[in-house]
Parts: sequence; structure tokens; C-alpha cells
Amino acid sequence: MTTIESERVAVLGLGAMGRALAGALLAAGRPVTVWNRTAGKADELVARGAREAASASEAIVGTDLAVVCLLDDSTVRDTLGPIAGELSGRTIVNLTSGSPQQARDQAAWVAAHGAAYLDGGILAVPPTVGTPGAFLLYSGARDLFARVEQAVAPLGRPLWVGEDHGHAALYDIAALSGMYGLSAGAHHAVALVAAVGGDVEAFKRDVLLPWLEQMMPFSAGGAEASETIPEEYNAAMQATGLQTMIDASSEVGVADELAGHLHASLWAMRRALAVSG
Amino acid sequence: MTTIESERVAVLGLGAMGRALAGALLAAGRPVTVWNRTAGKADELVARGAREAASASEAIVGTDLAVVCLLDDSTVRDTLGPIAGELSGRTIVNLTSGSPQQARDQAAWVAAHGAAYLDGGILAVPPTVGTPGAFLLYSGARDLFARVEQAVAPLGRPLWVGEDHGHAALYDIAALSGMYGLSAGAHHAVALVAAVGGDVEAFKRDVLLPWLEQMMPFSAGGAEASETIPEEYNAAMQATGLQTMIDASSEVGVADELAGHLHASLWAMRRALAVSG
Ligand SMILES: NC(=O)c1ccc[n+]([C@@H]2O[C@H](COP(=O)([O-])OP(=O)(O)OC[C@H]3O[C@@H](n4cnc5c(N)ncnc54)[C@H](OP(=O)(O)O)[C@@H]3O)[C@@H](O)[C@H]2O)c1
Ligand SMILES: NC(=O)c1ccc[n+]([C@@H]2O[C@H](COP(=O)([O-])OP(=O)(O)OC[C@H]3O[C@@H](n4cnc5c(N)ncnc54)[C@H](OP(=O)(O)O)[C@@H]3O)[C@@H](O)[C@H]2O)c1
Repeated sequence: MTTIESERVAVLGLGAMGRALAGALLAAGRPVTVWNRTAGKADELVARGAREAASASEAIVGTDLAVVCLLDDSTVRDTLGPIAGELSGRTIVNLTSGSPQQARDQAAWVAAHGAAYLDGGILAVPPTVGTPGAFLLYSGARDLFARVEQAVAPLGRPLWVGEDHGHAALYDIAALSGMYGLSAGAHHAVALVAAVGGDVEAFKRDVLLPWLEQMMPFSAGGAEASETIPEEYNAAMQATGLQTMIDASSEVGVADELAGHLHASLWAMRRALAVSG
Repeated sequence: MTTIESERVAVLGLGAMGRALAGALLAAGRPVTVWNRTAGKADELVARGAREAASASEAIVGTDLAVVCLLDDSTVRDTLGPIAGELSGRTIVNLTSGSPQQARDQAAWVAAHGAAYLDGGILAVPPTVGTPGAFLLYSGARDLFARVEQAVAPLGRPLWVGEDHGHAALYDIAALSGMYGLSAGAHHAVALVAAVGGDVEAFKRDVLLPWLEQMMPFSAGGAEASETIPEEYNAAMQATGLQTMIDASSEVGVADELAGHLHASLWAMRRALAVSG
């Protein structure tokens, strides 16, 4: 098994994320070819040593490994479609966000043109790409991941999550859903405090953040997919409390749409009570 | 200004939380009188040095400061109502969960009977009461808080959040809402992973928790009550992404009710776009 560690990597797409990916590869001393539909996005990367290709075709032909990071799935199809005949024997790592089914469809299409395919999801924002906190999820053949792992390691910690090409997208969506839960809850919390004229910054600093840090291992670490809830969690008491919270939120004039996480939690408590009762 | 630091504290209510509160006071060497409607809950506390009162009246009469922690607001009224005549000159700290309006009503009722009143919210669970992670929110007159602060410090870090008696309840609800956001997001995340047969424990350990820890300062720390969203957050891109996530969730068979935090976030993004557009 050979790895493709030291070979040139092509980066297709130089949006905020594509530029961050190419920059992290350059920072690690890897040879990089970049391409973007619209000109002018490559200048800084070229100044740092990247080679700029005039077309996606030119970028692909000079490398064995292409990292694709475009707006969405249809953009990827628009970009790879015209160069289908040049993919054979190469490896495509698609880091464009999409659904699990889109990932499976891309994998099948790329395989039909004789190329290897890994799908990926980026758990980072452009400024954290290439830093210790960043990690990237990959799915597809395990041996292919093993060959590519060193090549993509500069982008962030690589984590293989399964043979099914749809898994990286699904796990990415799951992790993002966790993050949106955190932000939806915090958004509603500060809206409540603001509604009564409270000091939002002091509340976040002194109450909300220390409390969330403390509850992280229980609230997130304790999450289970099961429909039942252990008795010590007292689902009936929590359901009553959640209803009080929803009512208090309306009482102070905060839009009920911002309490979606409370409605979701209440639904889960009631369901747990129905299952156990 | 005299503090009531070393005086005897009465704890009314010995549910899971009341027992934890009384235990924390005893652990700090404070003299404690306890009372509970139903007998048998005080035995361990008595063995540790607490004095047990035969009635709420007896508990109140022997102390200047009573901490009340009962099931809910109506329980507090049922308990204090019959002993209204004995409250004069004493201080009631009510740590029973309730709404902001219930707190204001209690404060007015207690004041009408000549006693001082602080309302409080407990940001802890029974096992963490009295540990460095626990903190308790208080609202009511600032000088009263200053006199009581040392007496209640063994319960957890005391934090005064305003003169308005309703503020502790409101801030408590806000912090709990943040926590429910965290747990609703994590619950949905693990439901997605479970729906495709993934390894939930590995996902939580390797993906979800590190990702949430990393995003905490941005997702919760960055929360603002404003209806607009800074341009760099790209509300349009996030709205598209959220819709994709909601669709993918249904695609793998997870109940849409569990995605309440995503609907809340989508609503907020659309609203931000409408406001800025
Ligand atoms: N930004 C983040 O925080 C973040 C985090 C995780 C994942 N992601 C994902 O990374 C991907 C890229 O995001 P981004 O932030 O880089 O987006 P972006 O800044 O909006 O860049 C979009 C890229 O797609 C290209 N593109 C759009 N339509 C095209 C078309 N029809 N043909 C060819 N190229 C086209 C753009 O080229 P032009 O310059 O020619 O328009 C640009 O390179 C997305 O799937 C996103 O979900 C982003
Ligand atoms: N447990 C937690 O994690 C937690 C966290 C934060 C805040 N809190 C709040 O703390 C308060 C107490 O919670 P808990 O966990 O201790 O609840 P609990 O274990 O269910 O205890 C309820 C208490 O209320 C008393 N009570 C109920 N109805 C009564 C009545 N009609 N007259 C007199 N007393 C009555 C019970 O007395 P009997 O023994 O006679 O039934 C018992 O002392 C609640 O407001 C809760 O929201 C709890």
C-alpha cells in the first residue's frame, strides 16, 4: 500500500474554505495546484508558492489527488462533469457539504469514470482549518482513506467514519445539529435576559457559559438515542418545568419560534413518559 | 449592616434538593433546623447534627433565616400561608423553581407579613450542590443579599442578578434554556447517527463533544439578542444549510419534532435576512 503523502494536491474551489484548505497544505510544505471558476482568488496562495491552473482540467491532469470544496453538490457536478474523461486513475476527496445521498451518488458517478472517491465533512471554520482544533470526517473505502490520510492531515485531524460514502455527510450534519442546539439555546437565553432589560454580556460571562461548561458532560455527553429516559431524570418533573419555561418566555414577549429546542425537549419527555407508562 | 453568617438556618422541604442544601450547610459547620411535610426524610441529616422541627412553624420560630425548597409555587403558598403570623422580622430565601411573576407575588405577600424576601434559582443538581461548580442566582434588595450572602455561600457560589424579585427566576429559566438547547441538539445528533446504524458512543467521544467544546465560545459566547446577524455569519448560506439538515434528518427517519432547534435557528436566519434585506 502506497500513501500519496508527498505528491502534489489540487484544490478545486477557492471560496473562504477552499483558500483555507490550500493555505494549510502550503503551510505544511506540500506542493499545491489551485483552481477557481472566477479569477483573482489565487493571488495570495500563488505568492505563497501555489501553482495556479487555468482550468479544472489542467489542475486535475497534473495531480493524483484533488480536494474539491465548492458551494454545493450541483456546483460539484457542474465542475467535474466536463472533465469526466480525465478522472480515471485519480482520487477525488470531496469536502463540499451535502446530504448523505448526494455523497453516495457522487461516489457512484466518480467510480463509473474510473476514479477513487472519498467524501468528507469539515468540522472547522476557515480560521481554524489546519489548527489542532480542526477535524475532518471522511467516509469511503478504508484502504483508500489509509492511503490519503497523510496527504490531507495538514487540513485538520482526519477521522474515518465508515465505508458508506454517506456517513461523513451524516456525521457532519449530526455534529452541526449539536452545535445549532447550543446556539439556539444560547440565543433564546439571551433573548429572555434582554427582554427584561438584563445585562446580556454579564449573564453570558457569569451565568450561561460557566453553567453550559459544567453541564456539557451530562447534557451532551449523556445524550442517548433511546426513546426511554432513566427514572432518575424524572421526565414528568422535566415536562412540567419545560412547560413553565415556555410559558415564561411568552410572558416576557420572546417569540415562541425561538423556543424550538424547548418544544423538542418537551416532545421527547412526553414520548418517554408514553413509552414507559 | 450585620450579616447573618453564623446563625441557625431553617431548611423547609427535604426533597432531593432540600436534603442536598441542608447537607451542604451542615458540611460547612452551620447550625441547621430541618422540616419536611412527610416524616422520615430528616434521619440522615439529624445524624449529621441537624435539629428536626415537628412543624414548619417550629422551624421558623427558632431562626432568623429560612431557606425554602419545595416542589413548586403553590406548595410554598400552602406551607407559608398557615404560618404567616410568625414571619415578621425574619428573612425568607425561596429557592423553589417558579416563574418571574410567581416570585414577585411571593415577595409582595411575604413583605405584607413583615418579613424580608429573596428569590433564588439553583444552577446545580443535588450531587453538585456545595461543590465549586454549583451556583445560585438571587434577586431582591441588594443590601438584603449582602446580609444573607455568607449564610447561603455553602450552597454554591451566590450571584445577585437584580432588585426585581423576578430576575433570579428569569435568569434561571434562561440558563436552563441554554442547557436544553445543548441537550436537544445532542439528542438529535445521536438520533441521526443511530438511525444509520453508527456507533453512538464513538461519535459522542470522538466527534460531538470535542466539536461542541471547540464551538462553545462562538455558538454560546457569541449569542446576541439582536435580530440582525453580522454579515460574516452568512445568514443565507446558513439558512440553506439548515434546510438541508432538516431534510436529511427526515430522509433517515428521525422525527422532525426532535429538530426543533434547527427550526428555531432557521426561523432566526430568515428573520435576520428579512430585517437586513
Ligand atoms: N465557510 C465555512 O465556515 C464552512 C465550514 C464547513 C464547511 N463549509 C463548506 O465548504 C464549502 C465551500 O464553502 P465556502 O465558505 O468556501 O463558500 P464560498 O466562500 O461561498 O465559496 C463558494 C465556492 O464555490 C464556487 N462556485 C459557486 N458556484 C460555482 C459554479 N457554478 N461553478 C464553479 N464554482 C462555483 C465559488 O467560485 P467563485 O469564486 O467563482 O464564485 C467558490 O469557489 C461549502 O459546501 C460549505 O458548506 C464551509
Ligand atoms: N432536583 C434538581 O435537580 C433540582 C435542580 C434545580 C432546582 N430544583 C428545584 O428544587 C425544588 C425541589 O426539588 P426536589 O428535586 O427537591 O423535588 P422533590 O424531590 O420532588 O421534593 C419535593 C418537596 O416538596 C414537598 N412538597 C410537595 N408537595 C407539598 C405540599 N403540598 N406541602 C408541603 N410540602 C410539599 C415534598 O415533601 P414530601 O416529602 O412531604 O412529599 C418535598 O419536600 C423544585 O422547585 C425544583 O424545581 C431541583
